[in-house]
Amino acid sequence: MTAPDDDHSRHNARMKRLKIARDKLQARRTAERGLLIVHTGNGKGKSSSAFGMAIRSIGWGMRVAILQFVKGTWETGERNFFAALSTDLVSFESMGEGFTWDTQDRARDIAAARRGWDRAKQLIMDPAIDFVVLDELNIVLADDTLPFAEALAFLADRPLTKHICITGRGARPELLAMADLVTEFGEVKHPFNAGFNAQKGVEY
Amino acid sequence: MTAPDDDHSRHNARMKRLKIARDKLQARRTAERGLLIVHTGNGKGKSSSAFGMAIRSIGWGMRVAILQFVKGTWETGERNFFAALSTDLVSFESMGEGFTWDTQDRARDIAAARRGWDRAKQLIMDPAIDFVVLDELNIVLADDTLPFAEALAFLADRPLTKHICITGRGARPELLAMADLVTEFGEVKHPFNAGFNAQKGVEY
Repeated sequence: MTAPDDDHSRHNARMKRLKIARDKLQARRTAERGLLIVHTGNGKGKSSSAFGMAIRSIGWGMRVAILQFVKGTWETGERNFFAALSTDLVSFESMGEGFTWDTQDRARDIAAARRGWDRAKQLIMDPAIDFVVLDELNIVLADDTLPFAEALAFLADRPLTKHICITGRGARPELLAMADLVTEFGEVKHPFNAGFNAQKGVEY
Repeated sequence: MTAPDDDHSRHNARMKRLKIARDKLQARRTAERGLLIVHTGNGKGKSSSAFGMAIRSIGWGMRVAILQFVKGTWETGERNFFAALSTDLVSFESMGEGFTWDTQDRARDIAAARRGWDRAKQLIMDPAIDFVVLDELNIVLADDTLPFAEALAFLADRPLTKHICITGRGARPELLAMADLVTEFGEVKHPFNAGFNAQKGVEY
């Protein structure tokens, strides 16, 4: 049997923990707050849809940061477009060394993913930025090129003042569980299968 | 029994028709040609993905025309963005009167869809344009607000020199059969269901 004083302080401590939990929940129930968005699946459009959200946000005067984890230095339409844009509302960076089947160097992939993640954390914590796109992050999380548990813990404590959109096939279930908005891009028909090359504007 | 001359000319006519058909098929098998792209399904990202392809195309110096069938004059991020863009590589027009449940006037919806389609045909036939986005066209085709058979016949004879991207839920099967690239946007999780409002940048 415990003394009444002990009971009292335990009750208070429990209520305090409950209130913190409830406040956290309430904060997440606010009708408008930053969303964690995931685009996954084998279909086309995961990245381009994130770019489309980016331009919508810019159209509202929001500040956007786009960070590409897999794409390296090769020329793409999106890089050309954002580089030529005469606004300081968007930044565009590619941290990757290319696809794994290009680099064939696991240590180099891990180092590139780490550099990308360090930059991602800076962007997410930057109060001036309203929308962060982490393009193809799912790819480096899928096989722990970037340690998934570490990324998940950081995202769980993310500031709720901005949207974050993570793209790439093979999103891990714990990430989907944490996300507010998930779209599965299903491949119904792909022109590669009909003998077409990857084409400018559509694929890159 | 027919005379040998008749047989000969019938054979030649048949071969000529075959060659025309085969040439048409070959033209469609060229490794790079304009694709007919459809974004459908109940998930989010169909329009924003089309906008993302649009900016990729602009990034390659291609000329893009975006035509919105359902969205009317209300302010959106994409409208603001494209209006502010200092390039003549993109045009952006909204032909709609809003959603059907807003207008509640079938005759007005039909007239708006007709105006939109007339404009769409101009854009598709304009040799200066490389990429045409027909945003939410599927919506007005789904219930024949715009006669589906008429649109399908026009699209079957489209010039193969440009990409066309048609968005909207409920794409009709004959359109999917004709398309080169189809993505089904599946709704896995939507913030509306968690009590969030539609938010700038993400939804509009």
